Amino acid sequence: MAEKQLDDLFLDTLKDIYYAERQILKALPKMAKAATSPELKAGFEQHHTETEGQVERLQQVFEILGKPARGKTCDAILGILEEGKDIMDEYKGAVALDAGLVAAAQAVEHYEIARYGTLVTWAKQLGHNDIAELLSATLEEEKSTDSKLTKLATSAVNAKAA
Amino acid sequence: MAEKQLDDLFLDTLKDIYYAERQILKALPKMAKAATSPELKAGFEQHHTETEGQVERLQQVFEILGKPARGKTCDAILGILEEGKDIMDEYKGAVALDAGLVAAAQAVEHYEIARYGTLVTWAKQLGHNDIAELLSATLEEEKSTDSKLTKLATSAVNAKAA
Repeated sequence: MAEKQLDDLFLDTLKDIYYAERQILKALPKMAKAATSPELKAGFEQHHTETEGQVERLQQVFEILGKPARGKTCDAILGILEEGKDIMDEYKGAVALDAGLVAAAQAVEHYEIARYGTLVTWAKQLGHNDIAELLSATLEEEKSTDSKLTKLATSAVNAKAA
Repeated sequence: MAEKQLDDLFLDTLKDIYYAERQILKALPKMAKAATSPELKAGFEQHHTETEGQVERLQQVFEILGKPARGKTCDAILGILEEGKDIMDEYKGAVALDAGLVAAAQAVEHYEIARYGTLVTWAKQLGHNDIAELLSATLEEEKSTDSKLTKLATSAVNAKAA
């Protein structure tokens, strides 16, 4: 065990977020379909396209490392997305549905912000500056998506639900 | 269903984070015990005390709302903490253990930042300014804990693991 180094942890965490991103890709169309506000629907659709690009970036990272692009079950994202499904079921047809969907999406974004933040730090520590740049680009996209969701949450979505 | 409003969603999400905080209270001593760096160990112990205060704040919020303080199973935190346990098992005795523990703790912090951010927004929308203040205090503590973990991650912890 003692030889398990930061590069092992880096690879394990890459596999974790790779699995997570592909789960998110499957969840986003369902969230877009469920959303009632046209802005929120469009937001989820746009983030779906962005997520496809993020998956490709991860594949590039695996390629640079000379490792196969492989996911590893990520219990965290499964739990987070499960809560999103609960909202879609429990608030179907309710005025608060969109507010709940925004909250669910922000929990997803924050998981990604935590993971990519960690991965960027580790990539730099390991001297993989090319990889750090790729992952930083995704990190910035996730932060920007989170900010857009906050704006949606504080404007139309909540005022309607309250 | 149509009558399910923001106040229902607010209460459901309070129950979610109340459950989550109590799970975190149980996990932190294990993380403190596992950590090898004295700073990280101390950090987890300090955050344990802080978390006790956050649980009390949530109890105050339930009281203001005239509702019993009750949790609701939060799949997200269970998944996030499960990943933390995996790190403790898979990296036990490894040099990268502390880096993994910091990453696990940051995933927890970001879940809380997402949830408290949402709750503060909703509390304001619902006109509960007293509750918004209580939850904002916790939100600021979580952000500060996340920043401290980032500092630990970029200093001693990773340099040792690399």
